[in-house]
Amino acid sequence: MQDAAIQVLVGARLATLADPVDGPGAVVIAGERIAWVGPQAALPADYASAPRRDCEGRLVTPAFIDCHTHLVHGGHRAREFEMRLEGASYEEIARAGGGIVSTVAATRTASEDALLAQALPRLDALLAEGVSCVEVKSGYGLDVETELRMLRVARRLERERPVRVVTSFLGAHAIPAEYAGRADAYLDEICLPALHAAHAEGLVDAVDGFCEGIAFSADQMARVFAEAKRLGLPVKLHAEQLSHQGGTALAARCGALSADHVEYATEDDARAMAAAGTVAVLLPGAYYFIRETQAPPVAAFRAHGVKMAVATDANPGSSPLTSLLLAMNMACTLFRLTPEEALAGVTANAARALGLEDTGRIARGLRADLAIWDVETPAELAYRIGFNPLHARIFAGRS
Amino acid sequence: MQDAAIQVLVGARLATLADPVDGPGAVVIAGERIAWVGPQAALPADYASAPRRDCEGRLVTPAFIDCHTHLVHGGHRAREFEMRLEGASYEEIARAGGGIVSTVAATRTASEDALLAQALPRLDALLAEGVSCVEVKSGYGLDVETELRMLRVARRLERERPVRVVTSFLGAHAIPAEYAGRADAYLDEICLPALHAAHAEGLVDAVDGFCEGIAFSADQMARVFAEAKRLGLPVKLHAEQLSHQGGTALAARCGALSADHVEYATEDDARAMAAAGTVAVLLPGAYYFIRETQAPPVAAFRAHGVKMAVATDANPGSSPLTSLLLAMNMACTLFRLTPEEALAGVTANAARALGLEDTGRIARGLRADLAIWDVETPAELAYRIGFNPLHARIFAGRS
Ligand SMILES: [Zn+2]
Ligand SMILES: [Zn+2]
Repeated sequence: MQDAAIQVLVGARLATLADPVDGPGAVVIAGERIAWVGPQAALPADYASAPRRDCEGRLVTPAFIDCHTHLVHGGHRAREFEMRLEGASYEEIARAGGGIVSTVAATRTASEDALLAQALPRLDALLAEGVSCVEVKSGYGLDVETELRMLRVARRLERERPVRVVTSFLGAHAIPAEYAGRADAYLDEICLPALHAAHAEGLVDAVDGFCEGIAFSADQMARVFAEAKRLGLPVKLHAEQLSHQGGTALAARCGALSADHVEYATEDDARAMAAAGTVAVLLPGAYYFIRETQAPPVAAFRAHGVKMAVATDANPGSSPLTSLLLAMNMACTLFRLTPEEALAGVTANAARALGLEDTGRIARGLRADLAIWDVETPAELAYRIGFNPLHARIFAGRS
Repeated sequence: MQDAAIQVLVGARLATLADPVDGPGAVVIAGERIAWVGPQAALPADYASAPRRDCEGRLVTPAFIDCHTHLVHGGHRAREFEMRLEGASYEEIARAGGGIVSTVAATRTASEDALLAQALPRLDALLAEGVSCVEVKSGYGLDVETELRMLRVARRLERERPVRVVTSFLGAHAIPAEYAGRADAYLDEICLPALHAAHAEGLVDAVDGFCEGIAFSADQMARVFAEAKRLGLPVKLHAEQLSHQGGTALAARCGALSADHVEYATEDDARAMAAAGTVAVLLPGAYYFIRETQAPPVAAFRAHGVKMAVATDANPGSSPLTSLLLAMNMACTLFRLTPEEALAGVTANAARALGLEDTGRIARGLRADLAIWDVETPAELAYRIGFNPLHARIFAGRS
């Protein structure tokens, strides 16, 4: 037995995302880790006298992981949303200062404290639904200083709240106005130097990009990924969201952790992703918000064994969504995932998409990141819309 | 001046849904009522010494009104949701006990206390988003006793929480198995006697029905409405949700408060509704959940001046939604309402759909039912998805 404080959850309906446990289950937490999990009837005698918490038949899952967010950004785009509904054209919105450039401008002019203050309510909304781990990207600075500031704020979130933050450097998110038509110059003069600077400061857990007609080509992304490889950083990619550009194939070729959005991915892409172990991160909030009609090739992902994660995308332009429960419902309703797949998507497969091996499942030795729900089955988590049945969240053993 | 306790909100950005107020606004609350509203600079000297609450530039709207819900019901249909996603046919789901019959069975066997306990978390989810008034329907009993029990629970909600409940008798919701193929006999032997009994007990604020191929014809609904008229009760109708059945024309002919769903309503229907003052209650949660593709004729409603309300539908079978903010976003995203229309849909027009003249707007003499939001513009309420920016709710003058 370890020295760490022991507590035992009993009376749990366990969705472990690992070895299944039938009937009333128990989880032994030793400090920050899971020391034992199994049927309550088989609880080792060692733990008989440890403090117990009776879950009273509630569902216990791994705490949720939101593996794709743009949680740190300045401003919002509610006026742009309104203008579009009032019939404004994209040109009119652009003339009014809308589009990604408005978020870039608001982020560049926001201080670190201001960015933090704006991100915290969004983070709190996620945590209230049992999230223990959030990926946060840069990508609204598009200059060295602001990209670094976004990542510093992402790291600060971990100190402000009981949450684990995984960062992605997304300098290759868009081409800023000052480099219009000069994507390669932007990469050489801003993006890659910013990546080096951010990495030197310990701010980068992975390198991301946006491979799309309106952003960077697969060849350009290959240059960014080559630099990531030199730095020993894993990669991931916004790929095939609006059209097929070959980003998914590139991602698989580079052994990417994930290819995200992937509405326009093909069966060949699915095959390549499966071979590379690249997770498909589905972002139904963006699909819903931009009224996309092409759903990702879920059947091909299933057929080839591609793991599917589900995330909020939490971004001001195309997915101002901060509910992972709602993302699960949308993944089921819009993409036809099963509730079981949706749950794996926000736990075990979300961990895979971030390269994390110590969370996302309930198994011995893993972090004690757990969610206790006022429901009996995983299906209830995905079925309800705009309802939060969280009973308690346990983060690294602490609730 | 009145005797009632006076309090003054200052520093408000006011969305009154009545006379517009530019610049910093003030609202004088006297007891349960609004005594004055206008620009802060014009606040009458009488109120200079009253207690003040500084809204610090926050948006203040009328409290929200959810004008179409099935909040009281037994059980849930998560397993049916899951089976459908696992590929089960409607026959297989029916054989497994799914469909509306499962909710009827769960409601019939639930005690009044059990129905109350199940409804309260759903109600709390609505209240947390600034709702002050909720319409609640019967319709899962389909026998006299259970229809009355549902309505008694609806009334009890008012005593359990600071909320106003408006009831609708929905005995004509479906034909129970024991009357299969004998809809008229069901109306004569169960529905109309239940209506009389419920009315005698003071449980009925309006009479509702489901006019659809799978439920009741317009002629059958006309019989129910005739009985409502004899009892002096207003009517409303689930109309043209899945097909065009003439329910909207019937509703307009009977001067109905509202026609609800109305995806398949026509331009003629819109004309008739406008002439009758019948509100179109849009239920985008149901449209989303059942993956309907025909949106209601919003342009025709606008052209003819039909008032549009927005509600959750909160029901276990086709809209397990308990977020009115999300219903607003869906009304914009899926039905292309403007944020301004969506806000009117959950305030002023929702009040109209319930025949309430004393709430839903911020104007002198109306109830002080208000919501204070951590946002600056109404557009922000509709734009975000799964985020609740409520700062405070004021119900009949009390927060
Ligand atoms: Zn993204
Ligand atoms: Zn309904």
